[in-house]
Amino acid sequence: MSDVTVNRQWVLARRPVGAVSVDDFRYQEGEVPEPGEGEVLVRTLYFGYDASQRIWLTDDGGYMRPVGIGEPMRTMGIGQVVASSDPGYRPGDLVEGFMSWQDYVVARSDGPMPLRVLPPADFPLSWNLGVFGVGGLTAYFGVTDGLKVGPGDTVVVSAATGATGSVAGAVARAMGAKTVIGIAGGPEKCRWVVEEAGYDAAIDYRDDDFAERLRELCPDGVDAYFDNVGGDMLDTLLLHMAPHGRVLICGAMSSGYTDVQLQGPTNYMKICTQQLTVRGILLFHYRDRLAEGARELGQWVREGRLHVAENIVEGFEHAPGLLPTLFTGKQPGKLLLKVADPA
Amino acid sequence: MSDVTVNRQWVLARRPVGAVSVDDFRYQEGEVPEPGEGEVLVRTLYFGYDASQRIWLTDDGGYMRPVGIGEPMRTMGIGQVVASSDPGYRPGDLVEGFMSWQDYVVARSDGPMPLRVLPPADFPLSWNLGVFGVGGLTAYFGVTDGLKVGPGDTVVVSAATGATGSVAGAVARAMGAKTVIGIAGGPEKCRWVVEEAGYDAAIDYRDDDFAERLRELCPDGVDAYFDNVGGDMLDTLLLHMAPHGRVLICGAMSSGYTDVQLQGPTNYMKICTQQLTVRGILLFHYRDRLAEGARELGQWVREGRLHVAENIVEGFEHAPGLLPTLFTGKQPGKLLLKVADPA
Repeated sequence: MSDVTVNRQWVLARRPVGAVSVDDFRYQEGEVPEPGEGEVLVRTLYFGYDASQRIWLTDDGGYMRPVGIGEPMRTMGIGQVVASSDPGYRPGDLVEGFMSWQDYVVARSDGPMPLRVLPPADFPLSWNLGVFGVGGLTAYFGVTDGLKVGPGDTVVVSAATGATGSVAGAVARAMGAKTVIGIAGGPEKCRWVVEEAGYDAAIDYRDDDFAERLRELCPDGVDAYFDNVGGDMLDTLLLHMAPHGRVLICGAMSSGYTDVQLQGPTNYMKICTQQLTVRGILLFHYRDRLAEGARELGQWVREGRLHVAENIVEGFEHAPGLLPTLFTGKQPGKLLLKVADPA
Repeated sequence: MSDVTVNRQWVLARRPVGAVSVDDFRYQEGEVPEPGEGEVLVRTLYFGYDASQRIWLTDDGGYMRPVGIGEPMRTMGIGQVVASSDPGYRPGDLVEGFMSWQDYVVARSDGPMPLRVLPPADFPLSWNLGVFGVGGLTAYFGVTDGLKVGPGDTVVVSAATGATGSVAGAVARAMGAKTVIGIAGGPEKCRWVVEEAGYDAAIDYRDDDFAERLRELCPDGVDAYFDNVGGDMLDTLLLHMAPHGRVLICGAMSSGYTDVQLQGPTNYMKICTQQLTVRGILLFHYRDRLAEGARELGQWVREGRLHVAENIVEGFEHAPGLLPTLFTGKQPGKLLLKVADPA
């Protein structure tokens, strides 16, 4: 167990305008909290970075209550139980779920999204936030249920080096897709998409001939597009969808998730003329099937069909500074902060 | 049969820029054509007006070959067979399908969308272009299959006085919808939507409190939105969809179907956060089920559950002048031109 006896916190100082910045957060220290009846005290070990965190900072919070000014920033995290008066959690248990940027969090097992006790496993703890966390599971349910990828499909994934995109290609292949194409920025990331993440081909969205490459690689159109990006790329893809194609709206990385008005897809009437289905999913919806998803993903990892990519930074002090790099970062894979080792 | 011995034509003179205008067409006269082997000569009786005609005038034509400069303008129409060397058509047969703005058209039965012989019926001939034509059948398949409206749904239909919208409400009710709300422009049209078309309530999109009225009438959100309009209205509706709601992208009347860039829905990330399904359908896709649709619609008409609304203008000379009024017109129901009576 760590020797931290104060509870370090990064709280929201002000609601960000435009891109989120380190200055939107304030450092403070408090007492290590005492868990009440039915509560559990958890020492945080890892924080995961997700684009949805930027949404939680907006006024309406998107699909969750927004993080309040003065509150520790919400995050998905991994921690270890220190004390518990809930029979479902024992000291030493490793847990995963909604936490916040502080050394210690207090949680209740009877909330709507209780912390999940992690079973003993033969893989790194951090994978629970990446390939077996929001990113990997969103890729799994997005490709299998949202896009219903099947044999023969031509599949395109944007932000293919991201926590979700780096997994989505492998899931599409496992579902029998004919061609799996990743979109990324720059030759280095494109190389990674093919050589490490196992895509058939990559397209550099910064290249002038982006649309032409897309047409070349998908001569019969795109059957399924996993959109993590929005903006111009979504518009371009709408022009290249095959009849009855499917689009999953999963993210809008191109916007940096700022508060400024998003750019809507001007080519959206292709939904009508190409008879497309455009869907959104939230992982909440699959809460009873998360174990199934993790089991399948784990199997593909063991078989070498799914490459696990992580970008782990160490040190609580970096918590707010890492968030903006989620939208500008150069490293492939899941972005994580390691706060402490388990006891 | 008409005494017309020349073949009057309205041909496309130039590709419209912005709103379509009567000046985009040119009048000319030709000989009555001679049908060749396997062809059928048809005297035109009715032309139907559809927003898709504006799309056929764009450079790429949308989902069909664009109408060429110098070609008679394409239209859905009703006609009567004058001469035929095809055993499937006999002189005197009434037929429906793709025609063009001229007194006589020559068609082939072995094309991709052959003219359909209309069986004897106890309803007005023109209904084959309206409630039993593109508008009514799009409403039928859009509501039943595109939106999958079912018992308990709160359904909203925009352009509720249009050829499609005036039918969609009745179809939604027949599917067991709990509340069916129509959107129209101005108090007169809104009155018509409730009193004639049988909607539960109407909202005037010109009113400042449009969004507030929507919230009042749909306190639990909108389960199914039949979008004939696009633009700001689609954006507003996206903010009021219930979780797992469905949106059918059926038209973009707000754009006037001009060549200028459409306004994409800036709130499209609600597709993700509300887990929506946004779809498009084309009637082509249901070509084997059109009789089923017409049978169901006919049953509802006979039972008084579906009000048939038409706006019929007479005289070939009005063919091009009517097209712009489709986007600006004040009359509810299907817009039609009557060219001639059957023989």
